[in-house]
Amino acid sequence: MIKSISIIEGDGIGPEVIKQTIKVLNSIAKKYGHKFHYKNLLAGSKAIEKFGDPMPEETINHCLKADAVLFGCIGDPKYDHNPKGMRPEDGLLKLRKKMNLYCNIRPISIFPKLDKSPIKKELLNNVDFIIYRELTGGVYFGEKGRYKNGDKAYDHCIYSKKEIEKIGEKAFKAALFRKKKVTLVDKANVLETSRLWREVIKKISLDYPSIDLDFLYIDNASMQIIMNPKKFDIILTDNMFGDILSEESSVLTSSLGLLPSASIGDDKSMFEPIHGSYPQAEGKNIANPLGCILSGSMMLEYFGMYREKNLLEEAVKDSIEKEICTPDIIDSKLSSTTEEVGDYIKKYIIHQ
Amino acid sequence: MIKSISIIEGDGIGPEVIKQTIKVLNSIAKKYGHKFHYKNLLAGSKAIEKFGDPMPEETINHCLKADAVLFGCIGDPKYDHNPKGMRPEDGLLKLRKKMNLYCNIRPISIFPKLDKSPIKKELLNNVDFIIYRELTGGVYFGEKGRYKNGDKAYDHCIYSKKEIEKIGEKAFKAALFRKKKVTLVDKANVLETSRLWREVIKKISLDYPSIDLDFLYIDNASMQIIMNPKKFDIILTDNMFGDILSEESSVLTSSLGLLPSASIGDDKSMFEPIHGSYPQAEGKNIANPLGCILSGSMMLEYFGMYREKNLLEEAVKDSIEKEICTPDIIDSKLSSTTEEVGDYIKKYIIHQ
Ligand SMILES: CC(C)[C@H](C(=O)O)[C@@H](O)C(=O)O
Ligand SMILES: CC(C)[C@H](C(=O)O)[C@@H](O)C(=O)O
Repeated sequence: MIKSISIIEGDGIGPEVIKQTIKVLNSIAKKYGHKFHYKNLLAGSKAIEKFGDPMPEETINHCLKADAVLFGCIGDPKYDHNPKGMRPEDGLLKLRKKMNLYCNIRPISIFPKLDKSPIKKELLNNVDFIIYRELTGGVYFGEKGRYKNGDKAYDHCIYSKKEIEKIGEKAFKAALFRKKKVTLVDKANVLETSRLWREVIKKISLDYPSIDLDFLYIDNASMQIIMNPKKFDIILTDNMFGDILSEESSVLTSSLGLLPSASIGDDKSMFEPIHGSYPQAEGKNIANPLGCILSGSMMLEYFGMYREKNLLEEAVKDSIEKEICTPDIIDSKLSSTTEEVGDYIKKYIIHQ
Repeated sequence: MIKSISIIEGDGIGPEVIKQTIKVLNSIAKKYGHKFHYKNLLAGSKAIEKFGDPMPEETINHCLKADAVLFGCIGDPKYDHNPKGMRPEDGLLKLRKKMNLYCNIRPISIFPKLDKSPIKKELLNNVDFIIYRELTGGVYFGEKGRYKNGDKAYDHCIYSKKEIEKIGEKAFKAALFRKKKVTLVDKANVLETSRLWREVIKKISLDYPSIDLDFLYIDNASMQIIMNPKKFDIILTDNMFGDILSEESSVLTSSLGLLPSASIGDDKSMFEPIHGSYPQAEGKNIANPLGCILSGSMMLEYFGMYREKNLLEEAVKDSIEKEICTPDIIDSKLSSTTEEVGDYIKKYIIHQ
């Protein structure tokens, strides 16, 4: 197959993790006879510096035309005080919206070999759930602003039935191929938007009689995810709650650096690690490339390349079994560099 | 001293934990020559059943006149689908608002004897922080509703400078007597209300040069609270984020049932355990009364009864050291009943 992939390296450790991911994807392409055409695009700090815009039109246009976007990470404390629309994060939000990537998929699974989680090991056996986070609505995209001379600020959270239906359908479909359970997380005892979520999701569940649907308030969920992580299968939730729960869930694994994500729309898609730009690690060859590499693996799955995806994930598992790991997930005296992890995975793929 | 205390037992395990708390408070009163006058008031399900209102005017009026309110817990799944304003939770929110209890204080500390936390023990030494949660503003109290025939729902989040200042001052003052650190948790990379929080809190910090102020995004905070709980002293945050973080933090201790809270206004106050009504445990004599008893201890402190508070907390610690504990925090084969825990603490106080 031939695929065109827009690449946004972004800020901080973005370029380093993307480099390893492309290396690995190329070894997959070679082995299976695919052609991946990459196009490097600017966004985040670098685009602010060059174009005065964290998400230039050119970048958006290329992303809209590509078969998929592979995204590193953006964010730079230097620009935190930029005016609205001019922060790196604004660029990311704009791209998600323009590409209509309403469904953000964040799988949480455990590598039993690793032991850097703050959670007691016996609680982590068989933890395997996926967060379906709504990504283009809610309080992230509602009107926001100031009044009374700037003394009052507001953020509006809005959801429509349609928005909830679209991601709801995707979540139930996913559950069919898994443990057949959907947990809707909301704050329906306080929020009207949450009550709409419950209504719509209950209605969808009637079409999926084999799926167990249950409900948790966000406060309770943030506790249950740590106390009983095994009990989850698909967690379905809104933009803000999904942001919180997915980063919180990283404590179950040994590092935020391990976690991939896919953002899907009706026909567009973007793949990005959950971790941020981690400026303190930039250029030190210590960043964990696995979150980005596993995002690449979600991209292969999206392309329908299942054997390819399986091989890539086997290679990642093997690198962890053999302790070819960056210092965030292993004793730093034994650790490998970002580059060495990428090389190991590439070699594994070639030699299988 | 003479104090009038409004009592709201509420739903589920509320009556049981309140009963033990009053027992313990009475032993304190007797020992130190105080008089506590209690007035039982209805709210939550029982008030819905009797008056068709989860927070009757009479209850509010008494609470406004009392020196303090001691609150059990409310909530009953039976009423989850009641119309707006008619759910037990609506009653609690109304009372907080009417009493102007804008500052909710939720201390998180560890009893080293206990080992039911899912977190590895070595991470928990010296964990001791307090969450200052804004309680009468934000998305909880902004306008909410439906339009487009109910197909769209909205919740407005609003904050004013004043609202942030009031709780901000209280948080900085508290830090002066502690580890001198305030962490503001927000989502300033996305929300305008969060940006107002940052502005106002930065400005307040200028008056407190001895206090270290730092900032965390809510997604990151929900991870850090588990990864590095020791590093926090005062966590200051808005209504919604405070709800989530405080319940999440309960995983550091061995049980949600242990956690007290105080809600303070300019001259009113209410004390309530963090746990909910836990209907499954109702009437079984297994509910942990310590969250409520420790809320009583925060009330004693609020009354300026410092020796009394210290003795009560010593008694609670002793009950845990001697393993007189409900089954949520100890091996259930060794556990005591709700009643037995209250009796033990009462006896300890009398005999000291
Ligand atoms: C950078 C930020 C705007 C973003 C978000 O909150 O969505 C990030 O935290 C994420 O989870 O992808
Ligand atoms: C019952 C509910 C409305 C309440 C809240 O969200 O404030 C509770 O979760 C709490 O934390 O006190």
